[in-house]
Amino acid sequence: MMGPEIERLVGLMARLPGLGPRSARRIVLRLMAEREQRLLPLIAALDAACQRVAVCPTCGGLDSQQPCMICADAAREPLICVVETVADQWALERAAVYRGRYHVLGGLLSAIAGHGPEDLGIDRLVARLDGSVREVILALPATVDGQATAHYLTERLATCGVSVTRLAQGVPVGGSIEILDEGTLALALSARRAAG
Amino acid sequence: MMGPEIERLVGLMARLPGLGPRSARRIVLRLMAEREQRLLPLIAALDAACQRVAVCPTCGGLDSQQPCMICADAAREPLICVVETVADQWALERAAVYRGRYHVLGGLLSAIAGHGPEDLGIDRLVARLDGSVREVILALPATVDGQATAHYLTERLATCGVSVTRLAQGVPVGGSIEILDEGTLALALSARRAAG
Ligand SMILES: [Zn+2]
Ligand SMILES: [Zn+2]
Repeated sequence: MMGPEIERLVGLMARLPGLGPRSARRIVLRLMAEREQRLLPLIAALDAACQRVAVCPTCGGLDSQQPCMICADAAREPLICVVETVADQWALERAAVYRGRYHVLGGLLSAIAGHGPEDLGIDRLVARLDGSVREVILALPATVDGQATAHYLTERLATCGVSVTRLAQGVPVGGSIEILDEGTLALALSARRAAG
Repeated sequence: MMGPEIERLVGLMARLPGLGPRSARRIVLRLMAEREQRLLPLIAALDAACQRVAVCPTCGGLDSQQPCMICADAAREPLICVVETVADQWALERAAVYRGRYHVLGGLLSAIAGHGPEDLGIDRLVARLDGSVREVILALPATVDGQATAHYLTERLATCGVSVTRLAQGVPVGGSIEILDEGTLALALSARRAAG
């Protein structure tokens, strides 16, 4: 009895991460009650992101320019930080403790999930190591899959003429990179050690 | 460093009820990662709701037809249930224990918030009492403002030739209608008593 348009909208919202039927209904009612201030701007912003934002073919990040602002920024240091997700990349950027570039794997090696190296764009990472890159920093979660992926990358990059390090301190066991505060990220970066 | 489109989208999402910067970022990343399955359908649904759904001029509910499906449904009983919000109306509809129509106030009388009777469409409610309506059921929250509003409506409707009742049992003190389960709503409806 909500009408088909509202029902469909609530249904789509309720399946977004962290939301459910109740929170989706609250959001939809707020949007409908404040069309000019909330609903129309949200539609325009979703539309703009949909039309203009794409995955950077170099690093796997998201941006409206290709390659992305970070890949295109000549002032970035010749380092590549390997992260699992764009959310992890954003966390490092927010912390403002790292001034190199990134490589977003989009996942981790996982026998259970059936993710192999070909799924993670690791060949693209290797192709970026053209001699100008000084160091690859593995900023992967301290989970079984994260450590397995770090181990695989360390071996794979051993012959690429680049030093491979990993965040060594401050990453809690079982924890993800995304939720770390700025201080912990700074510590983990400065105390990084040779991988392998 | 997220790009202006993403930054704007995350900012708008983060101000929706129940969300914050972190949950907004998660949602935006999921939407961007699943454009076909999530982002495009969500834009289409928001657009459809924005274009077609409006406030029913009779009851204050939301629907794509005017008057709304409930006001237009000849099979509904000649009762009007007065609720504070559309969310409360939806809760009663979901419970499927009531088969009359509604009047959505869109707020409560409040000296502090400065809401008077003219802000709540109470004249529109009185205008609906054309002799065919048998009973007005006040389903208002058991808060100070809710009870003050119920008291005002009871006095206001006393001369309208309609019986005025209120949900009497099961509404927890200080609680809202929206969160009540089906059984409690059924009990509160069946045990309603004369208001005043
Ligand atoms: Zn890039
Ligand atoms: Zn209506």
